[in-house]
Amino acid sequence: MALAKLLDLVTGSALKKRSWQEICHDLSRLKDEASVLRLAEELLSRYDEFDEDAQFEFFSYLLNEFRVDQQRLEAAIHAYLEENSPLNVQAINRASQPARRSLFEIINMCPRGTQHLLEMRVALKRHIKREPELQAVDSDLETLFLNWFNRGFLTLKKIDWTTPSFILEKLIKYEAVHEITGWDDLKRRVSTGRRCYAFFHPALPDEPIIFVQVALVKGLASSIGHLLAEDAQEQMDEGAADTAIFYSISNCQQGLVGVAFGDMLIKQVAERITRNNPQIRRFATLSPVPGFNRWLRQSLNGETLTEEEQTIVEACLSGETWDTAADTSRDTLTSLCAHYLINEKRGAAPLDPVARFHLRNGAHLERINWLGDPSPKGMRESSGILVNYVYDLVTVTKNHEAYVYENDVACSSAITQLARR
Amino acid sequence: MALAKLLDLVTGSALKKRSWQEICHDLSRLKDEASVLRLAEELLSRYDEFDEDAQFEFFSYLLNEFRVDQQRLEAAIHAYLEENSPLNVQAINRASQPARRSLFEIINMCPRGTQHLLEMRVALKRHIKREPELQAVDSDLETLFLNWFNRGFLTLKKIDWTTPSFILEKLIKYEAVHEITGWDDLKRRVSTGRRCYAFFHPALPDEPIIFVQVALVKGLASSIGHLLAEDAQEQMDEGAADTAIFYSISNCQQGLVGVAFGDMLIKQVAERITRNNPQIRRFATLSPVPGFNRWLRQSLNGETLTEEEQTIVEACLSGETWDTAADTSRDTLTSLCAHYLINEKRGAAPLDPVARFHLRNGAHLERINWLGDPSPKGMRESSGILVNYVYDLVTVTKNHEAYVYENDVACSSAITQLARR
Amino acid sequence: MALAKLLDLVTGSALKKRSWQEICHDLSRLKDEASVLRLAEELLSRYDEFDEDAQFEFFSYLLNEFRVDQQRLEAAIHAYLEENSPLNVQAINRASQPARRSLFEIINMCPRGTQHLLEMRVALKRHIKREPELQAVDSDLETLFLNWFNRGFLTLKKIDWTTPSFILEKLIKYEAVHEITGWDDLKRRVSTGRRCYAFFHPALPDEPIIFVQVALVKGLASSIGHLLAEDAQEQMDEGAADTAIFYSISNCQQGLVGVAFGDMLIKQVAERITRNNPQIRRFATLSPVPGFNRWLRQSLNGETLTEEEQTIVEACLSGETWDTAADTSRDTLTSLCAHYLINEKRGAAPLDPVARFHLRNGAHLERINWLGDPSPKGMRESSGILVNYVYDLVTVTKNHEAYVYENDVACSSAITQLARR
Amino acid sequence: MALAKLLDLVTGSALKKRSWQEICHDLSRLKDEASVLRLAEELLSRYDEFDEDAQFEFFSYLLNEFRVDQQRLEAAIHAYLEENSPLNVQAINRASQPARRSLFEIINMCPRGTQHLLEMRVALKRHIKREPELQAVDSDLETLFLNWFNRGFLTLKKIDWTTPSFILEKLIKYEAVHEITGWDDLKRRVSTGRRCYAFFHPALPDEPIIFVQVALVKGLASSIGHLLAEDAQEQMDEGAADTAIFYSISNCQQGLVGVAFGDMLIKQVAERITRNNPQIRRFATLSPVPGFNRWLRQSLNGETLTEEEQTIVEACLSGETWDTAADTSRDTLTSLCAHYLINEKRGAAPLDPVARFHLRNGAHLERINWLGDPSPKGMRESSGILVNYVYDLVTVTKNHEAYVYENDVACSSAITQLARR
Repeated sequence: MALAKLLDLVTGSALKKRSWQEICHDLSRLKDEASVLRLAEELLSRYDEFDEDAQFEFFSYLLNEFRVDQQRLEAAIHAYLEENSPLNVQAINRASQPARRSLFEIINMCPRGTQHLLEMRVALKRHIKREPELQAVDSDLETLFLNWFNRGFLTLKKIDWTTPSFILEKLIKYEAVHEITGWDDLKRRVSTGRRCYAFFHPALPDEPIIFVQVALVKGLASSIGHLLAEDAQEQMDEGAADTAIFYSISNCQQGLVGVAFGDMLIKQVAERITRNNPQIRRFATLSPVPGFNRWLRQSLNGETLTEEEQTIVEACLSGETWDTAADTSRDTLTSLCAHYLINEKRGAAPLDPVARFHLRNGAHLERINWLGDPSPKGMRESSGILVNYVYDLVTVTKNHEAYVYENDVACSSAITQLARR
Repeated sequence: MALAKLLDLVTGSALKKRSWQEICHDLSRLKDEASVLRLAEELLSRYDEFDEDAQFEFFSYLLNEFRVDQQRLEAAIHAYLEENSPLNVQAINRASQPARRSLFEIINMCPRGTQHLLEMRVALKRHIKREPELQAVDSDLETLFLNWFNRGFLTLKKIDWTTPSFILEKLIKYEAVHEITGWDDLKRRVSTGRRCYAFFHPALPDEPIIFVQVALVKGLASSIGHLLAEDAQEQMDEGAADTAIFYSISNCQQGLVGVAFGDMLIKQVAERITRNNPQIRRFATLSPVPGFNRWLRQSLNGETLTEEEQTIVEACLSGETWDTAADTSRDTLTSLCAHYLINEKRGAAPLDPVARFHLRNGAHLERINWLGDPSPKGMRESSGILVNYVYDLVTVTKNHEAYVYENDVACSSAITQLARR
Repeated sequence: MALAKLLDLVTGSALKKRSWQEICHDLSRLKDEASVLRLAEELLSRYDEFDEDAQFEFFSYLLNEFRVDQQRLEAAIHAYLEENSPLNVQAINRASQPARRSLFEIINMCPRGTQHLLEMRVALKRHIKREPELQAVDSDLETLFLNWFNRGFLTLKKIDWTTPSFILEKLIKYEAVHEITGWDDLKRRVSTGRRCYAFFHPALPDEPIIFVQVALVKGLASSIGHLLAEDAQEQMDEGAADTAIFYSISNCQQGLVGVAFGDMLIKQVAERITRNNPQIRRFATLSPVPGFNRWLRQSLNGETLTEEEQTIVEACLSGETWDTAADTSRDTLTSLCAHYLINEKRGAAPLDPVARFHLRNGAHLERINWLGDPSPKGMRESSGILVNYVYDLVTVTKNHEAYVYENDVACSSAITQLARR
Repeated sequence: MALAKLLDLVTGSALKKRSWQEICHDLSRLKDEASVLRLAEELLSRYDEFDEDAQFEFFSYLLNEFRVDQQRLEAAIHAYLEENSPLNVQAINRASQPARRSLFEIINMCPRGTQHLLEMRVALKRHIKREPELQAVDSDLETLFLNWFNRGFLTLKKIDWTTPSFILEKLIKYEAVHEITGWDDLKRRVSTGRRCYAFFHPALPDEPIIFVQVALVKGLASSIGHLLAEDAQEQMDEGAADTAIFYSISNCQQGLVGVAFGDMLIKQVAERITRNNPQIRRFATLSPVPGFNRWLRQSLNGETLTEEEQTIVEACLSGETWDTAADTSRDTLTSLCAHYLINEKRGAAPLDPVARFHLRNGAHLERINWLGDPSPKGMRESSGILVNYVYDLVTVTKNHEAYVYENDVACSSAITQLARR
């Protein structure tokens, strides 16, 4: 504070008259950390007042002015082409790092700097739609975030009813899978028979990075309504539970797109639960199949469906009420879903994004639950189906390897059978 | 734990039989974070048992096997040479990043991973002497550390008598300038009239990164003996102090060579003291001149010294007792010291490393104190001289710029006069 | 745990067969703290299952069996009557302390012991209605609580949106003056322009003892509706506030009846606010007049009211809608209220309990606010009137003394005038 | 602060002129807590400057002026003698409580109030020697401390090398049994294979109340030198330990004489160790026999010793070197020690104070260790003998009861045999 004020006296009046471009220029030129920080703070306060156009201009400026030194890069390339030595490779690596990366590193030193950069990236993502070349700026931020948010720097924290309210309030805001309807619902989700864990980063003490919600139950859960019911906990005895159901996992920071934490979170939470509740022997998810109805819609136009299937799928996609209780509805749609999850691909990987995530982590597909989520969103996206992926610690590595190297989809024999139409 | 144990059952027995090279290979191949972590922990426990030769082999392996993909790099270079676009630059940057950097990122995720990497780098520095090409491996570690130890992630903590003992014990170990002789000396250095601040990083909660020791005094301090005397504090009234003397600054982590924190530490501490003790108006150091005697020794062989100077310098360097009380001794050596600090260079920068540090930060050279440190080490390195660099917040930026862009050495007129022999 | 289990093996089976009376008996006989604690825990778990009759029996048992040793007391009295010495007085004091007090001291050592005793006293209060002699047991608990809850042991904590949710939830439950309608209302009450402070006791870390709610405003607040409005904060600038309004103060622990904290809480909070917000120059309350309508009702039957007053008071008490906007309503009722607060007494003290509290603390009555609280409760108890008591730190001691020793009611001249009907 | 300053303006100048007697008088008269606190703080600052005579005058003033209201007490006595009802007993109890107790309660509310009262009691103890009637004042402080330091309010904390240095420094100061020779010794006592636990009270966060030091060893330890040796820990494997040896227990607060915590501390620490180190099956002490040599000296003059014993005891007490290695020395003195511990009494209890403490707690005397502590102090007080008392959780309650009700001394058959001379 004091330092900033004094620096202000000296540099302040000058700053006021300068454009942000001049500030950026000075930032790239000066080396004294205190002065540089002062300038970076000034730049941030200017940025905070930018409108969309000014933001676009700013990011374009970073793209075009804070680039690599072309001469230096080409010299490095020539040296390398003459002699392929580790130090010449290293010279290329350094010369090909755009100057804006240093600028971001300086901004990160400012108070709330990391937070600012995350917000900057969210804005940048919008502007990329208009100017794809800005992708290069985004890539620099992503590289830095991948470094800074190395899993070794994250801490896993239990979220419960003793957590400060402003953190709990953020769970309500960030929950992406099954909406938290208010403080009563929230309290239930962090009380007896339920668990909630989040990753935090030391530079963002007030912000969860990602969190997962777990229910301790007896047997594999098949219905989200049952898990979230107001009286669900009263009926249950935590000591009798043998299964932990991961029923929701939500990323909180849009600015961290491309930096993945979910796999690690699930496995560390499983470990934590095993330690504190040794009676829990099974870890499974209760997951949506978010791409299922989209695929059904496309299939209508193809020739893969039988006539009977076609009728049922049309009813199901019509948005009107149809007979969900009918055995034929259930049989047809669960069978199609099994097929969709196992056989439909994007490249070599499953078409369904949630399936991609859990199968890649080494889980296997265990069960398809008809009408596990009959909410409007559940019906609209997954025809009300929820599936269980099981994280069996004995097979998780093997499954992961088979998935990565041989595109194998691990699943129970029941599912395999279902998929055979 | 539990997870680790179960993974052990599956992968463990196999691990035992594999060489560390095979583990490294798997590490580069696998993508499942839990498995990868398990392997990395195994690798670390192998590494811990390496002797010097095995370490050398390990680092050479990283240099030669965990290098860049040559084909990919050359393809990127060709694309760039054809079209100089931001995305093509980025492709080069990525392709020129050696695979070992990812390996280090994985190791950092392990428990105490950051600590391990710091220790690894200390070992690596030794092996570079034998094989300079290993510099490329060191450079990857340095790049990562520069990212991870971004000043935005450091926290400044006051160290005092309420600090846990195991931290205080480390100050005794790490103090590099004026040895702490024991717990009584240590207690004096963190009690009334004294301050100690350190930077900590969240990944190393038990390890200070760098710390600085400050004395609050009246007027510029000229003698370290006076500051550290047992009765120094009893005689002083903190409220009457007007000057903060930075009398010692010590880096604690050898593994962080090349990552500088000192400038920021001094300025943040100055700010903190200003806030808590507004009566403190001046910030200055009491610093050694560690290269002075080395330079004197070299000068003996040159022709720069007068005959009278020659005699005195010879006496001073002889290691025997000589008349330090004589006015001629004082006049000659302080004048030579002023000359040394202002005019003697390494390239464009001052020859003296401590002068380089403070002048670059924007401080100016204020005063030369004859016999400020008559300890054996002080006599041996600096002929007993200590100097004050003053951090005047009004001129610090100007000084820094003049130093960086014009090689100006800021100093008081008294010093300028002294230097004129 | 372990100790308890082992003790169980030894003493447990025996315990199961014993009556609680036998446990109590052993408790009074044994001296080994570990055994005594074990018994006390057993007693508490028995107590937890008592129905109303068993509770009554238990308290009666404490009254009759855990009494003083009559012989010892009489011997002490005789010694004192023979020689009035300090040590003989002390002997009486000890001999007149009933044995149940030691029992309560032992219970306090159990886990959650203090909490248990507070709950016991709440139950006891019910039984006193049936058997007034139990007052003596209550008096022992009160004596202990007065000792244990010495203000020196309480800590003042700010309650805000970073407070753990389970504490905030308790504010909703305990708020006694202006109901907190939910989490949104609660958040407003602890956010910008508002303050909430509570006293906590180390033995009850999860339970506030008493809390006060404050609004920082410009000028004296006259209406609670305005303070609690959803948009109240948006319109206000904390920096422009000059007055702190204590608008609600709630005791949380029924078991602490007779142990007063309110005076100290108000003054410590005033001090804290002065320190953090030096622009706040005035401290005042916005308080109900809870006994006003009760007194009005009684006055109807007396001869103190004029005919006009009689008509208006009857309308006001009728519970039906009447013309609150009429000047005559306002003039009559505020004048009667001023009279009620200044002149109507219970003994020498004001009849109104809230007036008694604030005037005794040294505040003075500053202003009467017509329709300050038009809520049903406000209309029913105070005819919608709220008053401001001002804590002027310059006169608070003088006022207090004048109140305590001369029964003076400090009030503004405006109020004095209003009271003159 | 702010409040205090303002009150100062009002009451301050007056305070300066008043005597402390007048302040005390006002303290007994005023009821407003803020004013009362202000006065109490002033009183404490006066007290801090008292010399011995002024202290004596102050305590005498409390004895004589802050006494009971004689009329009120006598009225209560008469009412009781007429009707022995619980409420009349209670009236006596209240009337017989001297006014100074309220004064102490007010002082306790001041910052560092509890600390001040503890120091006051230490001073008071000195003055009691001069005027035994002051015992009555001491008794009031003791009563309050017994209330305030109820074990339910204490927290057990592990002391180790992560403990703040100012706390660790206090262990060095307070250690009463085996002197801690410096920070290296201290570090050993809180590191591997050693434990240290202390009770803390919330009102004295910076001061341990009592602490105990424990060594985890294999088998019953017989020599303190072995436990405290510099290399003791290097040789030991914590996992192989089966016994926890309580080798030192020190009260830290002289002002708490008469308030006992040791029994509870030992048992809670045993419980804590059992939980964390389940392999530890036995809890025992390694204790001095501090009254043994005193008793030997007295025995010399009596007729209890045989001629042979007489010779050996004389040599042992002579202070000169004698043949400690001789079997006869060992046999005679250990036998006498066993006899001393079992048969020599003060009233019905053992003559030795350490024996009284542990036997009363329910421990039994297990073994006598010849030359367990050959330090000068050990030789002077206990002829170098140390004994093991074993806390066997299965028998501890039985032993305690037998001790309290039947004066039984529990001991191993080996000791019984030894005692038979």
